Amino acid sequence: MYLDDETLDTVDAWWRAANYLTVGQIYLMDNPLLREPLTAEQIKPRLLGHWGTSPGLNLVWAHLNRAIIARDLDALFIAGPGHGGPAMVANTWLEGAYSERYPAVGRDEAGMARLFRQFSFPGGIPSHAAPEVPGSIHEGGELGYSLMHAYGAVFDNPDLVVACVIGDGEAETGPLSASWLGNMFCDPVTDGAVLPILHLNGYKIANPTLFARIPEDDLREVMHGYGYEPFVVAGDDPVKVHHELARTMDEALDEIKRIQQAARSSKDGSRPRWPMIILRTPKGWTGPAEVDGVQVEGTFRAHQVPLPGVRENAEHRAQLEQWLRSYRPEELFDATGVPVAALAGNAPTGARRMSANPHTNGGALLRDLALPEIDEYAADVPMPGATTAEATRFTGAWLAEVIRANPDRFRLFGPDEVASNRLTAVFDVTDRAFTGRIIRGDDHLAPSGRVIEVLSEHLCQGFLEGYLLTGRHGLLTSYEAFIHIVDSMVNQHAKWLKTTREIGWRQPLASLTYLLSSHVWRQDHNGFSHQDPGFIDHVVNKKATVVRVYLPPDTNTLLSTMDHCLRSRHYVNVIVAGKQPAPNWLTMDDAKLHCRRGLGIWDWASTAGDDEPDVVLACAGDVPTLETLAAADLLRQHLPDLKVRVVNVVDLMRLQPDTEHPHGLPDGQFDAIFTHDKPVVFAYHGYPTLIHRLTYRRNNHDNIHVRGYKEEGTTTTPFDMVMLNDLDRFHLVIDVIDRVPGLAVGAAALRQQMTDARQICRDYTRRVGEDHPWVRDWKWPAEPDRPA
Amino acid sequence: MYLDDETLDTVDAWWRAANYLTVGQIYLMDNPLLREPLTAEQIKPRLLGHWGTSPGLNLVWAHLNRAIIARDLDALFIAGPGHGGPAMVANTWLEGAYSERYPAVGRDEAGMARLFRQFSFPGGIPSHAAPEVPGSIHEGGELGYSLMHAYGAVFDNPDLVVACVIGDGEAETGPLSASWLGNMFCDPVTDGAVLPILHLNGYKIANPTLFARIPEDDLREVMHGYGYEPFVVAGDDPVKVHHELARTMDEALDEIKRIQQAARSSKDGSRPRWPMIILRTPKGWTGPAEVDGVQVEGTFRAHQVPLPGVRENAEHRAQLEQWLRSYRPEELFDATGVPVAALAGNAPTGARRMSANPHTNGGALLRDLALPEIDEYAADVPMPGATTAEATRFTGAWLAEVIRANPDRFRLFGPDEVASNRLTAVFDVTDRAFTGRIIRGDDHLAPSGRVIEVLSEHLCQGFLEGYLLTGRHGLLTSYEAFIHIVDSMVNQHAKWLKTTREIGWRQPLASLTYLLSSHVWRQDHNGFSHQDPGFIDHVVNKKATVVRVYLPPDTNTLLSTMDHCLRSRHYVNVIVAGKQPAPNWLTMDDAKLHCRRGLGIWDWASTAGDDEPDVVLACAGDVPTLETLAAADLLRQHLPDLKVRVVNVVDLMRLQPDTEHPHGLPDGQFDAIFTHDKPVVFAYHGYPTLIHRLTYRRNNHDNIHVRGYKEEGTTTTPFDMVMLNDLDRFHLVIDVIDRVPGLAVGAAALRQQMTDARQICRDYTRRVGEDHPWVRDWKWPAEPDRPA
Repeated sequence: MYLDDETLDTVDAWWRAANYLTVGQIYLMDNPLLREPLTAEQIKPRLLGHWGTSPGLNLVWAHLNRAIIARDLDALFIAGPGHGGPAMVANTWLEGAYSERYPAVGRDEAGMARLFRQFSFPGGIPSHAAPEVPGSIHEGGELGYSLMHAYGAVFDNPDLVVACVIGDGEAETGPLSASWLGNMFCDPVTDGAVLPILHLNGYKIANPTLFARIPEDDLREVMHGYGYEPFVVAGDDPVKVHHELARTMDEALDEIKRIQQAARSSKDGSRPRWPMIILRTPKGWTGPAEVDGVQVEGTFRAHQVPLPGVRENAEHRAQLEQWLRSYRPEELFDATGVPVAALAGNAPTGARRMSANPHTNGGALLRDLALPEIDEYAADVPMPGATTAEATRFTGAWLAEVIRANPDRFRLFGPDEVASNRLTAVFDVTDRAFTGRIIRGDDHLAPSGRVIEVLSEHLCQGFLEGYLLTGRHGLLTSYEAFIHIVDSMVNQHAKWLKTTREIGWRQPLASLTYLLSSHVWRQDHNGFSHQDPGFIDHVVNKKATVVRVYLPPDTNTLLSTMDHCLRSRHYVNVIVAGKQPAPNWLTMDDAKLHCRRGLGIWDWASTAGDDEPDVVLACAGDVPTLETLAAADLLRQHLPDLKVRVVNVVDLMRLQPDTEHPHGLPDGQFDAIFTHDKPVVFAYHGYPTLIHRLTYRRNNHDNIHVRGYKEEGTTTTPFDMVMLNDLDRFHLVIDVIDRVPGLAVGAAALRQQMTDARQICRDYTRRVGEDHPWVRDWKWPAEPDRPA
Repeated sequence: MYLDDETLDTVDAWWRAANYLTVGQIYLMDNPLLREPLTAEQIKPRLLGHWGTSPGLNLVWAHLNRAIIARDLDALFIAGPGHGGPAMVANTWLEGAYSERYPAVGRDEAGMARLFRQFSFPGGIPSHAAPEVPGSIHEGGELGYSLMHAYGAVFDNPDLVVACVIGDGEAETGPLSASWLGNMFCDPVTDGAVLPILHLNGYKIANPTLFARIPEDDLREVMHGYGYEPFVVAGDDPVKVHHELARTMDEALDEIKRIQQAARSSKDGSRPRWPMIILRTPKGWTGPAEVDGVQVEGTFRAHQVPLPGVRENAEHRAQLEQWLRSYRPEELFDATGVPVAALAGNAPTGARRMSANPHTNGGALLRDLALPEIDEYAADVPMPGATTAEATRFTGAWLAEVIRANPDRFRLFGPDEVASNRLTAVFDVTDRAFTGRIIRGDDHLAPSGRVIEVLSEHLCQGFLEGYLLTGRHGLLTSYEAFIHIVDSMVNQHAKWLKTTREIGWRQPLASLTYLLSSHVWRQDHNGFSHQDPGFIDHVVNKKATVVRVYLPPDTNTLLSTMDHCLRSRHYVNVIVAGKQPAPNWLTMDDAKLHCRRGLGIWDWASTAGDDEPDVVLACAGDVPTLETLAAADLLRQHLPDLKVRVVNVVDLMRLQPDTEHPHGLPDGQFDAIFTHDKPVVFAYHGYPTLIHRLTYRRNNHDNIHVRGYKEEGTTTTPFDMVMLNDLDRFHLVIDVIDRVPGLAVGAAALRQQMTDARQICRDYTRRVGEDHPWVRDWKWPAEPDRPA
């Protein structure tokens, strides 16, 4: 018997109270204290919610509270099975935090009635551990991400313990499976601790779980092999489980403390064997054992609402009442519905409550980044196109200073592509975080490194989300094509951001910013499998208040964009930029102005001057900009009388109407730039339809002709790639000839010349293996009338 | 010493030959047999390819060949590190299969020159184990899916062994991490065997790998815990490694045989402990040890091209020549470049070659499904809306018969949602595949079950891909929102399909078909996190020759669509359908006709008759169709003179111009249905912009007004959900009033009535928790002029 009787009673009372409140939320419209026998009208007409996982969540919460009080622990709770929303709500209400955030839901009978009624009820609250729940940083709607969020939360929070409950359903997912090795990045000296609690209740919706059905020795081996010391607690006798779980929780927390003290006194950040808990309890524990003669408790049938049709079925209603009364509510709540004093004995106070831990409202903790002046990192651009640079390399130098200046609140994440994406300068000031064995010849590895590289976009994203949600800043750099791996994760995060904008007490977070390089046009090595610019399309489906997309065309615009994004709050920012040597077009002053406007006419590249142009050459993206300028150069040479206007777009959402997106350009301004009726040949980085989708309500839309990626590609030269997709300079000239009224006849020879040039380039490339010197050596002409 | 000298020599010669051919592909334009010292011009101008992983792939291939010959083994090879494309090409060329598929690349000096030159060369072949490579079913461009493909390939192929090389980079990904437990679904009685070979060469692009840096005992524990018996082979002395790997390969293959014999004689499909191999060899083994004084072999610097600038740098060129000569090509190829006879001793023949295993060209093995007549499974529809059904339940009954009739070539995959999606009838004829412990109370679990359920969309997708790629059929059913989890996987598969359409010897595969239920409009339980209809948008970005999207509005159209999709070849089919009780609109005959047309005017719901309508009410999706018909009913009642045409769209791609998609409707037909100039109020299942994106070139596009999901949602009633997104019947009526010229004044009262109705419904729902009876009880009116 590990616990003394009083503590046992208190913990058990908490558990019963939370279970009672959970069941109440799922079923009751009224009569929360069961002052009278339940009537049909007191039952919700639609019974929604997930009971199965809830008693386990409540049990863990009850025991964590005991430990928090005993140790004055700074802990937060992540409910991997976020579907058990009513359990989370129940605990936060018991702790008072719920009523502090939502005064209308007081901690008394009337409040309890509201608490019950509002759950999963129209106009009420969602069924999951949604952003509305105090103390939640993890909804758990889409499974797989709990342990990543936990690791992200403890980075640079050395005193924080994150208790992360992982359901055995979630444990089957890929992202969660990869997360166990998150301990390879968690420095016991400078980071906090994650306590994973793998809750095996045995079943998913309709199936047993895999981990519940492999031999227990095998499961222990998996956990031990991943670097954890597994502690197993199993049972269905509440008293025994209370004692065992309490003992185990203490052992695990003692071990965490021992590990941290040892590491911190020796300054040795190498990977310890962290404790973790395997908790086996029945699904839907303490709920109806049988319903209509069929076993429910301990089976998948307890997953959602174990007793159906309670409004209509008097027998089920009686069974519900019996179930609720089995928690002995009269011992838990006083006559006015207030939790009894004994429960308070298991509640931490103030910020020690997991429902009110400050880290769970990260925006309130968020401090601005110290950002170095970008001017000092600018590329020298004496004239447009006069110099060449790898855009991301300059940003890397600036990011190094960001990392240096913000040693406690900024991290860089990437799937093994930080160096490949030319951000190597960051390794002048920091290392890659790595607590595994480090050997001679390794390149910048250290437990305390501020760059996290792991070959899993899921982990990068999940770590960063956890880091942002707890009030810090970061950046994720990746290959453009493979960021689709986290499509569904960015969905969930964007939904979190959208929802929390509308929750008054949630403060804005630092934005989730992507730097996507190694983009579709420069997969010279990798070819077709690595060519996909569709992440932009995916993100643009999310709420306009949340998403931003930038396509800086050169070095200085990338720096300006990055600076802007790292200052921003509560957005998903997508930046797509090149890492290959490419011309610089704008000075830093021009770049800042251009980025502030989001798009603009490049006078120096245009021949129309202040006149209405004959044609607009629009572009977005570094490679399309290059091809557009080369096309403009060809047109200037061959059709000197043609009035060409070159427009570059950095901020893609400027194209949408201002009624659709906060960055949207008003129609008048759009028309002033893109004209009312002139042909627009638009060279776009991604799938052409996105431009149509953004502009279809614009006056001149019928004249907008877009070139972009049309899913044609292979391992080939850069120019061959743009030719494969008709985005090349020669084809853009042909597009102009075909679209400017009256040009077709006079420019027929030029058109043929362009067609021939394409063939010559293709033949040359297939023969020699390189791009034709015409293309390779082309530079924007330095002319006296150009601005210096 | 395990191998006799002759066998050792032969295996080693194969390895050296494959390594030689690999290096040659990466570097050489000409002089393939090194008849003269290498000159600058003989070096490719762009050095592309991945050397680091290649010697390991070649080693495994060489040893598998030995075992195949010794055992007459039916084996195929999956290269997780598909980046090692030149290694795969090298082995297939050595086996002759390459030249059989590509006669221009003969097995002689001229052919070798072509082989070298074409690799990663414009107009040549891609750098990965792409579809162009004989024997490949797995490109490995995006990492994570090798082991899933392996398991998918062995299902129902009891005599097949899939050797699956997993790089230690790939092993860090989520999808791969989850794949280890693929053995929970592999029946030793009826399925073949997967031999995972975890190749630890220690490094990714710029970092050490995680698995290479955890203690070896831990790694063994992980593998053992996942149910495997790990065999470790480690070393950097070729002779020792040859002996050890040969011995280990024999032990592993003996063990597989023993397991299968035991299981098959006892008919016991419970999960055995399958063997797996951990192979530790240096990255870039046998390549340059140092370059310019820096260690390369055995480090991440060997990842891609270990010797750079060989064209320009004579010293590097000399080093390359030395490297190539270290394989002693003169012993491997005769004077004409033909591989010497000794190599043939390590080459299986005919279909036993891994480069020519019939399973790797699955289309050639593919047999049609025996499909039951859908008429027998039809819902009875005496009049439109007269009956109600759960559409997916009827399809489930039909699928049960599909499973029964095709016991060797059809499987159903889902992340624990087969029952939830109402396909429960399949369990009348089969079980869920499960080789883990089965206990009393489990529901339809058996090792030989033909339904695979695992809470990982990644695994479902990967298993199914492997199954399809080896010439079988299947269906994946999932929640609509969470199918985004596999966005990047469907990208890769769609790219495979697009590419293989253009490869003559690759026969078409069965389509990859999704049945997405539990869709955005019916997340009553789960709310906002489960609401996302964007998978359609994602898929539509892929090549039009490959993608198809269907939105059947009711039971019989779903059956007809499913029947069509399971007959189709080489597509990605996305079907979104409801699982909740909903009205049936069409008889089976009408449904078939409607599906064949893809879209059509529903005369019975229209008031325009043969006249030009005043307004078109278009709809796609079950819930939008319901709301549209209810709106049509309101308009008929309140504005009897208004000529309304109702158009339903099943096949979404009909909306695109026929120049863009093979299913696209010619403009004339589109205009005949959607009119030239009348307002179209389009109620669409997903994000509204998709309809604009598909129709922006249509004549009447400016009049198309789309309602759909605008990222507003929570846990609420079905009708409240459509109201939140302005897709409800009342709002559609308002849209009609606002858009039909001249209607605004006369219908002002009706407009107000509709606005009031929305408020009344909302208030009622928030008070009572259910949808208003107006909505709940609404039925399409049975009128005498309706067709029976």
